[in-house]
Amino acid sequence: MAVGLSQLPTLYPVKGIRLATGSAGIKYKDRPDLVVIEIAPGAQAAGVFTRNRFCAAPVIVARKHIAEMPPRALLINAGNANAGTGDLGIGDALACCDALAEQLGCSGQEVAPFSTGVIGERLPREAIIDALPACVGQLAESSWADAAHGIMTTDTLAKGVSREFEVEGSSLTITGIVKGAGMICPNMATMLAFIATDASVTRDVLQECINQTVTHSFNRITIDGDTSTNDSFVLVATGQGQAPLIDNADSVEFMQLAQVVSQVTSELAQAIVRDAEGATKFITIDVSGGVSEAECLEVAYTIAHSPLVKTAFFASDPNWGRILAAIGRAKIPALDVRSVSIYLDEVRIVNQGAVDPEYTESRGQAVMDQPEIDLKVDLGMGSTTARIWTSDLSHDYVQINAEYRS
Amino acid sequence: MAVGLSQLPTLYPVKGIRLATGSAGIKYKDRPDLVVIEIAPGAQAAGVFTRNRFCAAPVIVARKHIAEMPPRALLINAGNANAGTGDLGIGDALACCDALAEQLGCSGQEVAPFSTGVIGERLPREAIIDALPACVGQLAESSWADAAHGIMTTDTLAKGVSREFEVEGSSLTITGIVKGAGMICPNMATMLAFIATDASVTRDVLQECINQTVTHSFNRITIDGDTSTNDSFVLVATGQGQAPLIDNADSVEFMQLAQVVSQVTSELAQAIVRDAEGATKFITIDVSGGVSEAECLEVAYTIAHSPLVKTAFFASDPNWGRILAAIGRAKIPALDVRSVSIYLDEVRIVNQGAVDPEYTESRGQAVMDQPEIDLKVDLGMGSTTARIWTSDLSHDYVQINAEYRS
Repeated sequence: MAVGLSQLPTLYPVKGIRLATGSAGIKYKDRPDLVVIEIAPGAQAAGVFTRNRFCAAPVIVARKHIAEMPPRALLINAGNANAGTGDLGIGDALACCDALAEQLGCSGQEVAPFSTGVIGERLPREAIIDALPACVGQLAESSWADAAHGIMTTDTLAKGVSREFEVEGSSLTITGIVKGAGMICPNMATMLAFIATDASVTRDVLQECINQTVTHSFNRITIDGDTSTNDSFVLVATGQGQAPLIDNADSVEFMQLAQVVSQVTSELAQAIVRDAEGATKFITIDVSGGVSEAECLEVAYTIAHSPLVKTAFFASDPNWGRILAAIGRAKIPALDVRSVSIYLDEVRIVNQGAVDPEYTESRGQAVMDQPEIDLKVDLGMGSTTARIWTSDLSHDYVQINAEYRS
Repeated sequence: MAVGLSQLPTLYPVKGIRLATGSAGIKYKDRPDLVVIEIAPGAQAAGVFTRNRFCAAPVIVARKHIAEMPPRALLINAGNANAGTGDLGIGDALACCDALAEQLGCSGQEVAPFSTGVIGERLPREAIIDALPACVGQLAESSWADAAHGIMTTDTLAKGVSREFEVEGSSLTITGIVKGAGMICPNMATMLAFIATDASVTRDVLQECINQTVTHSFNRITIDGDTSTNDSFVLVATGQGQAPLIDNADSVEFMQLAQVVSQVTSELAQAIVRDAEGATKFITIDVSGGVSEAECLEVAYTIAHSPLVKTAFFASDPNWGRILAAIGRAKIPALDVRSVSIYLDEVRIVNQGAVDPEYTESRGQAVMDQPEIDLKVDLGMGSTTARIWTSDLSHDYVQINAEYRS
């Protein structure tokens, strides 16, 4: 069902990163559900995590471990979120970290754990620990694509992006993988996303790079408005490329790095929406003319979360009245409907609060029949803009979420 | 599909109110789609209307007319919302008011119009005007049930409530009808609801009665979070009963009236949710232990609007992790998850932020298998409570809204 997503592109190895998948049979019996990402000594890492207050045990542990020292490994399992599990869940996550650390010859504190899947069930720690030795035996620089498959839950396609880029004339690489599918409305964080580069970057500057890029990528997508308990995004800089150390967020080198990280995060974020649960449409919502970005986002998310708008997109129905109703209920106290315009692609439907006299149903239908649609709203009040991406609400979304425990 | 709703109960006539239905063929060809409610001289009326900024033309006209003088008639059509139609829509609404006024021998200003149906299409005013004479010829005190049918859109059952009550020993009657189905998240207003009593009440006191009762009835329901452009609730007091005039909102008589109006609005509001588009479950969400009512409502609506929670209810799946995730993303800055408890009916699932050791899947399943479920959340912070009602998200909701233009 993925919209405009083809098979995984070539994912270039990143010097200093080795990956492997394993099968612990947590929920999925016929595919890998365990991923180890080994990071060479000397790397730096930074992360952002869900703002959901019921954040999962692995989020609590990973956030703490990454803050304390550069991680030597990331340990990811699919099929069980280890969320809502209290102190027992923390113990399970730590036990898995210790077991992997023993295999790799580092400390448990140098392992950051990540989980995705069912909420509220104990993590089968023994199954994971038992699967680790075989997994570690497979570690290889070339296994990014396998890892992209190993972190999937209801995703229908593995998702990853890779780029070669230059910093001050030196050639570097960046590769990232992501999983999404449902319970997607990241709040200052993402679903599970792991990106590595061989650039050399200090910890603080790496964190700044994440903060700048996440705002306009992972924090600008929504599938169902449900912010997960497990969202995590980690960016690793191994420092094994040839380029000089980036230690200043105001430098040209930082700009070069941030630009490519921004491209990669934006493409990964869009890939999550394209492969949303049951998605048949990929919708870009551009809101302009707001007095603040917060206003533009309020309108954009109100539209994106409206079940009626989403089912109209599913039906390819140019039912713009539902878009207008969503704008009208957005929490924008000063909104004057007589200044609002609405476009589907380049077709203006509403002009100054009422239907455009030149609008015809057939022109709207032609846009709605496409799998990818740009919805533009001009609030006519100020000069601020915001862009988000979302999907439609289909029978398959209901089917998947009535059947699947997430 | 309606949950726990049977056929319309007996709706008692209210002295001073006559009703009739007609067929204008606006959208529905095989059933009445026009309702006239005639109000005898001497009555008072008060209303509340949608806060959606794109409020419909009839809302603009009805709000103004009712504010200016007591209405002599309400004119309601189903199948076209006359919303997003700009000044032309206002003209159409006024023309219909004038035509009915001519039939009834009053002024156009004494007619309040109401519309429900497709947004963004011109109201077929000629069809409505042509159907009025036959309609007016049928006016009768006994036609409340017919009127309840005439205002339906995707409602599967006509909805109404009737009570006989006493004010200071005098016997009075109150009867109300309502339509709902989808685009339901009233904000300081309701879907179309019309309630009349033969009590004698001054205009200001009647408005106070609406304001007090709407907060805990129509403003406490949500089906899909989509606030309609056309929500309207009108309460008429004909003054033709035997009880004395109620002219003081602090009096015992007012308390007696407000209590029965509160019962009627609460029952009608619940009837809307029971007959929600595609509903298979009727869910009461009680949030307690908040520091403010706003906090409790934020948690309640975050749960009620979560597509993942709603699909879990549809599947009768005690997937409490989704409820926990919704609470965790609600905008309650001071929330400490370690004080949160969650119950399905009397079964405690989560205690102090983690799964209750005594909880078993089979106990949760037994509750979820019921068509009516009480979900209780204790935030463990303060002493405030709030209650709302909502429905599930089913295949039929998607089907209805992918097929139906609303």
